[in-house]
Amino acid sequence: SRLHSWANRLEETGKDKVTNLQFYFHDTLSGKNPTAVKVAQGTDTEKSPTLFGAVFMVDDALTETADPKSKLVGRAQGLYGSSCKEEVGLIMAMSFCFEDGPYKDSTISMIGKNSAMNPIREMPIVGGTGMFRMARGYAIARTNWFDPKTGDAIVGYNVTIMH
Amino acid sequence: SRLHSWANRLEETGKDKVTNLQFYFHDTLSGKNPTAVKVAQGTDTEKSPTLFGAVFMVDDALTETADPKSKLVGRAQGLYGSSCKEEVGLIMAMSFCFEDGPYKDSTISMIGKNSAMNPIREMPIVGGTGMFRMARGYAIARTNWFDPKTGDAIVGYNVTIMH
Repeated sequence: SRLHSWANRLEETGKDKVTNLQFYFHDTLSGKNPTAVKVAQGTDTEKSPTLFGAVFMVDDALTETADPKSKLVGRAQGLYGSSCKEEVGLIMAMSFCFEDGPYKDSTISMIGKNSAMNPIREMPIVGGTGMFRMARGYAIARTNWFDPKTGDAIVGYNVTIMH
Repeated sequence: SRLHSWANRLEETGKDKVTNLQFYFHDTLSGKNPTAVKVAQGTDTEKSPTLFGAVFMVDDALTETADPKSKLVGRAQGLYGSSCKEEVGLIMAMSFCFEDGPYKDSTISMIGKNSAMNPIREMPIVGGTGMFRMARGYAIARTNWFDPKTGDAIVGYNVTIMH
């Protein structure tokens, strides 16, 4: 059934429901009201080509389309950090908290490696709450827009959840 | 079937495959090219017998045998931190990204307590990507070598994954 443009239930396989979510993740480091802020780093982080060791706390908006002014469907809140010396790879440990429709106040937890320079990358969904209690699944991320000067990015997420 | 010296499939139970991985985790804090760097700590961390509060970012090599020059099978990338005031216990939140054979670019995510001073300890595998999509399992870790002066360690991992 088509619940919302950004979320729909695909099928019920035995006990598991399968839900697909599609939204855009706005990682904004620049400007007066950044939603991603650096909170820690190593002594040599600034000398590392990949900023190895930098840790950020984020409270990033999730919207229905790539347009930052499109409907807010939730927020991605948690940590990511540069965890690779040779490639831009981020360890992501965060919760996606949804604010729209039936999934309001339900969350999913993601922890995994985001090979941010790959056109498409996958990260595991390891749990959830509310409508997503006992959830497991995977998130496919694809960069939609990136500003190398500021590091700001808009990333498309396609998340499949069994719960 | 015996895929690689470090990875073999044990059995297929119903829909789930069970894969066992064995490799060595090289945690190198010393030298010119450390793969584990301190990125944060509390004001009293240095006074704590367990360095309680110290947070490290790591991009640690995973090799086939305890010899650091043996075949590189992947890397452990992410965070660990001293999370115990009375024992040396580390909260580990990291992704094991494999680079060898059929598991190239597949990852597993581990989050849990590493009671590093115990001869043998167990940590949960909570998810995976690629060949390890939807993975769950457990990692048994056993210290192979440890230098108390530098904190460098080589830890044997035996990981069982249902996926």
